[in-house]
Amino acid sequence: MELLKQTILERGQIYPNNLLKVDSFINHQIDPMLMANIGKEFKQYFGNREITKVLTIEASGIAPALTTALEFQVPMVFAKKTLPSTLMKDNVYSADVFSFTKKVTSKVVVSQALLNEGDKVLIIDDFLANGEAVLGLKKLIEDAGGEVVGVGILIEKSFQPGREKLEDNGLDVYSLARIKSISEGKVTFM
Amino acid sequence: MELLKQTILERGQIYPNNLLKVDSFINHQIDPMLMANIGKEFKQYFGNREITKVLTIEASGIAPALTTALEFQVPMVFAKKTLPSTLMKDNVYSADVFSFTKKVTSKVVVSQALLNEGDKVLIIDDFLANGEAVLGLKKLIEDAGGEVVGVGILIEKSFQPGREKLEDNGLDVYSLARIKSISEGKVTFM
Repeated sequence: MELLKQTILERGQIYPNNLLKVDSFINHQIDPMLMANIGKEFKQYFGNREITKVLTIEASGIAPALTTALEFQVPMVFAKKTLPSTLMKDNVYSADVFSFTKKVTSKVVVSQALLNEGDKVLIIDDFLANGEAVLGLKKLIEDAGGEVVGVGILIEKSFQPGREKLEDNGLDVYSLARIKSISEGKVTFM
Repeated sequence: MELLKQTILERGQIYPNNLLKVDSFINHQIDPMLMANIGKEFKQYFGNREITKVLTIEASGIAPALTTALEFQVPMVFAKKTLPSTLMKDNVYSADVFSFTKKVTSKVVVSQALLNEGDKVLIIDDFLANGEAVLGLKKLIEDAGGEVVGVGILIEKSFQPGREKLEDNGLDVYSLARIKSISEGKVTFM
């Protein structure tokens, strides 16, 4: 998606250790017009499939998942990283997600009332690096008896193994910007 | 806003202690069409004011803040509840927010790069009860040299002191659903 790639080049910041920061349009400040276009792009790609729900993880995934769900006119669910006080442990689907960046395993949970047998779910997330978050969401969906119909990613770090892992799990991954490398402060796309 | 009130009556759940749960359309699962309408409603009410930014708190505020920002065609910023690894303590505005429900004080932070002198900010949040979260956001905006031009709330618990506190602080509060009471499993609007 040309608009996202251009925005990354113009407004992304490269931090030490070649960390790409997109705080000014995706992760902290959000560009709503960009998000609306991202929703339309995912609708274009996944539009011929039957989709009953869009699933993401709080907090950065919410904006693109919402604009995508709006295009499909289906509900959006965001998995939570902490168990809310109004949910009991027995009433959620949960999955462990290992973060390679933070070297910790955390849980993601979704209320059992919100994922159902027969659900055909489109997973949306902001970054794909090692694929652990998406595999966690896939487990939640399958625990509920639903199926993943596709995975939409904003920014794929193609130099990390996420895409391969997801494809090995039979998932169709569509990434709007695939980054081949980040070095010397410069982003190169595939 | 009639649509939101109807949705609360039809899909809200009353838990013990008269806790209103809106997990199936606002807080966990999100109804994107409802959110799009909420953005239009806030645009209608606040549309004659100059607004440069919409500010909310993760995670439940993100969806209505996004659809509102889309209507105004301005950036949306969400305050974070934890300090991200890419932000230094010295580079954020922060405020303490006391939760009467959880009886704990937590911090909300926004990168100093994202709130500026002269910013005219519309605050959006899902619930108004005691007003602490909005007052925290107001502090962040004013620390940056900006000003609050209005406060848009989805669900106001009018039997709690939030609105009065915000009005005492000179804020114009527009709530889409004002709940007068919750008792015996029944919601009554103002």
